[in-house]
Amino acid sequence: MVGLGRMGANMARRLARGGAEVVGFDSEADARAALVGTAGCSTVDDMEALIHALPAPRIVWLMVPAGEQTEETLAALTPRLLAEDVIVDGGNAHYKDSVRRAVELASYGVRFVDCGVSGGIWGLEQGYALMFGGSPAAARAIEPIVKLLAPTPDRGWLHCGPSGSGHFVKMIHNGVEYGMMQSLAEGFALMKGKAEFGLDVAAIAEMWRHGSVVRSWLLDLTAEFLRADSGLADIAPIVADSGEGRWTALEAIEQGVPAPVLSLALIMRFASQGKGDYTDRLLAMMRNSFGGHKIEHMAESSGKAK
Amino acid sequence: MVGLGRMGANMARRLARGGAEVVGFDSEADARAALVGTAGCSTVDDMEALIHALPAPRIVWLMVPAGEQTEETLAALTPRLLAEDVIVDGGNAHYKDSVRRAVELASYGVRFVDCGVSGGIWGLEQGYALMFGGSPAAARAIEPIVKLLAPTPDRGWLHCGPSGSGHFVKMIHNGVEYGMMQSLAEGFALMKGKAEFGLDVAAIAEMWRHGSVVRSWLLDLTAEFLRADSGLADIAPIVADSGEGRWTALEAIEQGVPAPVLSLALIMRFASQGKGDYTDRLLAMMRNSFGGHKIEHMAESSGKAK
Repeated sequence: MVGLGRMGANMARRLARGGAEVVGFDSEADARAALVGTAGCSTVDDMEALIHALPAPRIVWLMVPAGEQTEETLAALTPRLLAEDVIVDGGNAHYKDSVRRAVELASYGVRFVDCGVSGGIWGLEQGYALMFGGSPAAARAIEPIVKLLAPTPDRGWLHCGPSGSGHFVKMIHNGVEYGMMQSLAEGFALMKGKAEFGLDVAAIAEMWRHGSVVRSWLLDLTAEFLRADSGLADIAPIVADSGEGRWTALEAIEQGVPAPVLSLALIMRFASQGKGDYTDRLLAMMRNSFGGHKIEHMAESSGKAK
Repeated sequence: MVGLGRMGANMARRLARGGAEVVGFDSEADARAALVGTAGCSTVDDMEALIHALPAPRIVWLMVPAGEQTEETLAALTPRLLAEDVIVDGGNAHYKDSVRRAVELASYGVRFVDCGVSGGIWGLEQGYALMFGGSPAAARAIEPIVKLLAPTPDRGWLHCGPSGSGHFVKMIHNGVEYGMMQSLAEGFALMKGKAEFGLDVAAIAEMWRHGSVVRSWLLDLTAEFLRADSGLADIAPIVADSGEGRWTALEAIEQGVPAPVLSLALIMRFASQGKGDYTDRLLAMMRNSFGGHKIEHMAESSGKAK
């Protein structure tokens, strides 16, 4: 397991609990230290030691951030591997990068699996949903590991198709996640906004969990944090976005297939980040220009702008 | 139980299974006949007989279509009831109608409960999510019935607040449902559209059910119908909408609170109904006018227009 952050470390723990012997590596000494003492897990201090610690054919599972770090890790790792070794990229790489990497690694005889991993901080206990792409031989090689990481050995994992398809399916999964999150959030905002009914949105979330059409894991999580604090006044109204929401919107454009809700859910995050503030300033000035409508200045606007 | 359609008849059955004695009425003889023979359920042939069959204080639960039919049923029923009788409107009325009706019925001393019911055809077995508004006394009166209809006696029901609040919460629930459905559908369309990966969308839906962030009851249903037929070529691409999606969008405008994804999910249904065809014809003609771009005529367009 290369990359012992929140995801990688917990996946190493789940594998070890399932009976696997896991060798962990992270370029950060602190991350390595956090895994020491976990039964079934050992750590090594560099890539060279990692290679020597594993019996051939090796399975090296990467849980490092997509982009440069994945690229660098692969560059360091690949020349050290032998034919029939397998690299699994469990990060959120763009699927086109994964298609390219599979071809590049094939020239070394190294097998490559692109694996989307869902489950976040709950995966250690509940298991991870795993969607992966690669050759049948590579898929077969990682199957025993996949079965330990998944919620149960026969559920929550799928060899989706050729290289790239795992990260593609994970990308769409995250795109859908954006839309479902935004849908729930907008609905709760409209209930919170209905002062005349004095609604207890935490109780409503809990009630919807049972028998309603919108019951879902995202609703379960929402019910839990609303129970602790339904006002959320201390939470800054800023929603980050990572690559996959954007890539899903771009994929829709590339295919020429309408995915307006997934795209808009992403765009609303940009708005939450204040990236529409200049637009809103322009609009305020236009109204002022043609109609003399009042504009507010920053000192009066109680910090709405981000 | 007044209104023995798909919802009302199954709710009567669930109540009877729970040990309640249910008297059913429907203006359609066929609907009445379908309930005959269900243990614990009897039927009557008119409203007068219904009143006489029930001990006071009566609880009359309406499962009739919102709008005119609900209005007519209430008009026929109300003068026959006594003080402390309770009418529950389990249909999908607009919450403002329910606020008005509660006031009107109060002048007869009749208690009114507006109750949103979710669960569809699955409610008979799994129970219904029930969200209701009304006075504390009215809410207390229907509690024993609510506990039989809900998935479990202590889960899946909530007295949300004053009259109107039940139908308001149900309206928002359905608005959220539109957004979640559209999110899932757009994601699966992008996977189906990715011919190069030859993805098995049915297998992906099934896999996502376990350990993924998007697991949900709507995904469970999607996995089930995709397993039977993932191409859906025989399903006309037309999505109906009922009142509550529209009302949610209007509520957002009334409150001045952004609910763009819920609103757009609704608007995409209008597009699916062909209500944007004239717009699209105009756009085709504009492109033709300024750029000489080709237009298709209806005979060539393979029936895209609805």
